[in-house]
Amino acid sequence: MGKYAVSIDDIRAAAGRIKSVGHRTPILTSQTLDKMAGRKLFFKCENFQKVGAFKLRGGWNAVSMLSDEEAAKGVCTHSSGNHAQALAFSAMKRGIASYIVMPNNVPDVKLDAVKGYGANITLCEPTLEARKTTLDEIVKKTGAHEVHPFNNPNVIAGQGTTALEMIEDLGELDAIIAPIGGGGLMSGTCVTTRSLLPEAKLFGAEPTGADDAYRSLKEGKIIPQTNPNTICDGLLTSLGEYTWNILKDHLEAIYTVTDDEVINAMRLVWERMKIIIEPSSATAVAVALKSEFKALEGLEKVGIILTGGNVELSKLPF
Amino acid sequence: MGKYAVSIDDIRAAAGRIKSVGHRTPILTSQTLDKMAGRKLFFKCENFQKVGAFKLRGGWNAVSMLSDEEAAKGVCTHSSGNHAQALAFSAMKRGIASYIVMPNNVPDVKLDAVKGYGANITLCEPTLEARKTTLDEIVKKTGAHEVHPFNNPNVIAGQGTTALEMIEDLGELDAIIAPIGGGGLMSGTCVTTRSLLPEAKLFGAEPTGADDAYRSLKEGKIIPQTNPNTICDGLLTSLGEYTWNILKDHLEAIYTVTDDEVINAMRLVWERMKIIIEPSSATAVAVALKSEFKALEGLEKVGIILTGGNVELSKLPF
Repeated sequence: MGKYAVSIDDIRAAAGRIKSVGHRTPILTSQTLDKMAGRKLFFKCENFQKVGAFKLRGGWNAVSMLSDEEAAKGVCTHSSGNHAQALAFSAMKRGIASYIVMPNNVPDVKLDAVKGYGANITLCEPTLEARKTTLDEIVKKTGAHEVHPFNNPNVIAGQGTTALEMIEDLGELDAIIAPIGGGGLMSGTCVTTRSLLPEAKLFGAEPTGADDAYRSLKEGKIIPQTNPNTICDGLLTSLGEYTWNILKDHLEAIYTVTDDEVINAMRLVWERMKIIIEPSSATAVAVALKSEFKALEGLEKVGIILTGGNVELSKLPF
Repeated sequence: MGKYAVSIDDIRAAAGRIKSVGHRTPILTSQTLDKMAGRKLFFKCENFQKVGAFKLRGGWNAVSMLSDEEAAKGVCTHSSGNHAQALAFSAMKRGIASYIVMPNNVPDVKLDAVKGYGANITLCEPTLEARKTTLDEIVKKTGAHEVHPFNNPNVIAGQGTTALEMIEDLGELDAIIAPIGGGGLMSGTCVTTRSLLPEAKLFGAEPTGADDAYRSLKEGKIIPQTNPNTICDGLLTSLGEYTWNILKDHLEAIYTVTDDEVINAMRLVWERMKIIIEPSSATAVAVALKSEFKALEGLEKVGIILTGGNVELSKLPF
C-alpha cells in the first residue's frame, strides 16, 4: 500500500470488474445549465447506474474481490440507502447471501428494493448505536463479511471508476464537483483525477445541515457529524480514516449549500434535463450555480457527478 | 404529391434541416421494463429533445421551409402545449416573430416557457371556438403564417424523423408504438417505417378519455373528439385529413389505456429509468404492458416513442 489505501491501479482493476455488471453511464450536457453556471458542465449520470446510484460500483468491487471462502458466509452492512441496495444486488449477482440491517422507520420503497434483491433484512431502532449492535449480532451468528459503505479500500476503488469513465470519455476537465457523505466517492475521484489530470481541481459539495467534511477540512482533522439535518439523505454520515486521508490532501475546497439551494437545483435538473436525481446529487449542481463558485477563474469545463436518482415520488419537496 | 401528403424523401429532407437545431435523442433500454413487457423495448427519448418534446422537429421543419417572404411576417398558432413552445423556439432560431394564442387557464410554467422564446402571446377563453377566432384576428392583423400543430405536411415530415433516427440506430424493429393526438407523430412514423421496415407493425396508443382515433379506425372515417377527459394533455385533439389519410392505411391497431394505466406506466418509467416523461408519452408504455399487447406473437423488438417530458412538478398525479 502506498501513501493512500487506494491507487489508480486498484481503480483500473475495479473498472475491469465492474464492466460486466454495471452500466457505463452516459454524460449529459445542458445549454440552459451552462448558461446559468457560466461555463460548460458535464453531468456523469450515475442516476442511470444499476440500483439507481454509483454505490453499485463500490459494492460490486468489494463483493467480487472476496475469496470464495470469505464470500461463502455472505456479506452484511447496516444502511437504509443506496449502499444497502448495491450490496444486496452484488450479493445476488455473486450468488451469496446478504444481511442488511435497516432502521425500522425506513420507507417501504427502500425496503422493497432491497428485498427485491433477495436480502435478509433485520429492522432495528433508528439509531447508529442500535444499527451497529444489530449488525454485530448478525456477524456473530452468520459469520457474514461486513462491507462498510465507504471506509473500505475496495469500495473506494470501485467509486473511483466513475471519474475514470468521465475522464476517458471527455479527455479533459478543469474541475470535478462531487457530493461528500462518508467520502467514498470523492476520495476515489481524487485518486483517479490526480493520476490522470494532475492539474484538475477537486471540489466537494455538502449540505449546510451535514457539513462535517467542510468543518474537517477547515480544522485539519475529522470532525464527526452529529445530528445532521438536511433533505440530502445520502450525505448524513461522518468521514472515515481511509477517505479523510485522501480528501485532506487533494480537495481544493468544499462548498456548502442550503436545502433550498439543493431543492432549486434538483428541480432545475428535473425540469430542464428531464432526468431524476436525488437531493444528495443536487448538492453538486447547486455548488456549480453558487456565485462564489461561478467567480472562480480558469474553470471552463467542469464535471459534475450526479450520484443517484432514488427518490420517493410521493414525498417530493416541490 | 403521391398518395399521401408526405413521402420518405420529405422526411429525409426534414432530417437534414433538423440536424443543426434539434438533438439526435438517445434510445434507452430497461431490463425491468423488458421483463414486465415480455420482450425487448427500445425507448426513443424525445423528452430529451429541445423544448422537451418531439414537436420541435415538425415546428422547425415547417418554419425553416418557409420562403423569406412567407417568414417575414412571422408565424402563428393556437396551442397550450408543446407545439407552442416548438413554434416559438423555431421562430426565435430563424429570427422571425411568433404569435401564440393560448387559453387563459394555461399554467404559468407553459406560459413562461413560450414567453422565454420571445413569442407574442394572446390569451383567450379556453374554448376551441375562441382560440380559432382569436388566431384568425391575429392572422388578419399581422399577416403571420399559420403553422398547424399536425395537419400540415411539413410538420408531419418533421415528426417522421423520430422513427427515421430510431430505425437508423437500431437497424431492425418488429413494431413501433407511439401515442396519437392529432396523429402528426404517428403518421410520420407510418411513412418512415413503411419505407424502411415494410414488415414492421405500427401501433397507436390513446387514452380511453380521448379515443377518437381508435373510434375513427373502427368506423373507417374521422370521428372528432368531443369533451376529452384524460390526464394526457397532449392527446386531446381530433385527427386531421392529412394524418388520417396515412393512419387508416398503415396502423395495425390502436390500443386504449385508462388514466390509471397511464399514471402507473409513467411512475414506472420515472422510478426505474430515472427519466421524466409526461402522461401523453406514458400511453405508449402502458400499451406495451397491457396483457392483450403482450399476447401478440412475433414482436421481439418493439420501439416506443417517449414523446415528451414537460410536466408541472407541483401537480404530479402521485
